[in-house]
Amino acid sequence: MTNDNEASAARGASETIETTLSFSPRFGPDGLIPAIVTDLKSGDVLMFAHMNEAALTQSLATGLAHFWSRSRDKLWMKGEESGNLLRIVEIRTDCDQDVIWLAVEVEGAGVACHTGARSCFYRRLVRSGNMLGGALEIAALPIRRSRD
Amino acid sequence: MTNDNEASAARGASETIETTLSFSPRFGPDGLIPAIVTDLKSGDVLMFAHMNEAALTQSLATGLAHFWSRSRDKLWMKGEESGNLLRIVEIRTDCDQDVIWLAVEVEGAGVACHTGARSCFYRRLVRSGNMLGGALEIAALPIRRSRD
Repeated sequence: MTNDNEASAARGASETIETTLSFSPRFGPDGLIPAIVTDLKSGDVLMFAHMNEAALTQSLATGLAHFWSRSRDKLWMKGEESGNLLRIVEIRTDCDQDVIWLAVEVEGAGVACHTGARSCFYRRLVRSGNMLGGALEIAALPIRRSRD
Repeated sequence: MTNDNEASAARGASETIETTLSFSPRFGPDGLIPAIVTDLKSGDVLMFAHMNEAALTQSLATGLAHFWSRSRDKLWMKGEESGNLLRIVEIRTDCDQDVIWLAVEVEGAGVACHTGARSCFYRRLVRSGNMLGGALEIAALPIRRSRD
């Protein structure tokens, strides 16, 4: 997570977390850290979820993505029932170490979204309406790609 | 954001939000929606931030990424002082419409992180220590790439 140049001066000890080579993930007040998952090959964002410390530890130890389900209030290994496990190839963290990025290979059917789509981000926004009323009308249209 | 196949049955009216072509962003209790920003060309994740409704509206209206700064408690246009504006080429939303993905071109110096790095995710995790004590030691090493 970042602010702009103009904000960094006011952020005190941020140099430390930005430059350290020590992995010091910063979990939020809810004990969670956001995790972005991308497809190693296509670079597409596949999904977004949260990890608590146990999920991150399990992910690091097994090489398979684990998350904390806020709706079910439990640790889960992605694909534990569907077989669409996310094999972690690379993990990065951001300047503030309060976000995790996983580059993965999807096992099983290669599907990361519970809807059956390869990626959860299967709709893109397009302007659908005129601007006569001053309102911006936006539709979310399905992505169609040969690799999906 | 997604859960696994096994969770979807219990989620009630989720079909609607998953299949609708209407853009109905779901802001959290704090009025914010997470936004993932990737580089259109490389596919790399550049940064992660949050939008409130005004930031999303401004982003849609101007084609330039706006966010809500939680630390400064204000709306900001990314790059407003540095010139490293994020020109939005594509916006997607996820199955639950509670995450936004922006594919962008970075203007100015092509730098998205306030540290001067192209991406905020300039460190990758590597195993640094032995496992003798049962502890997993992880370092966060700088990414070195020719394009950086």
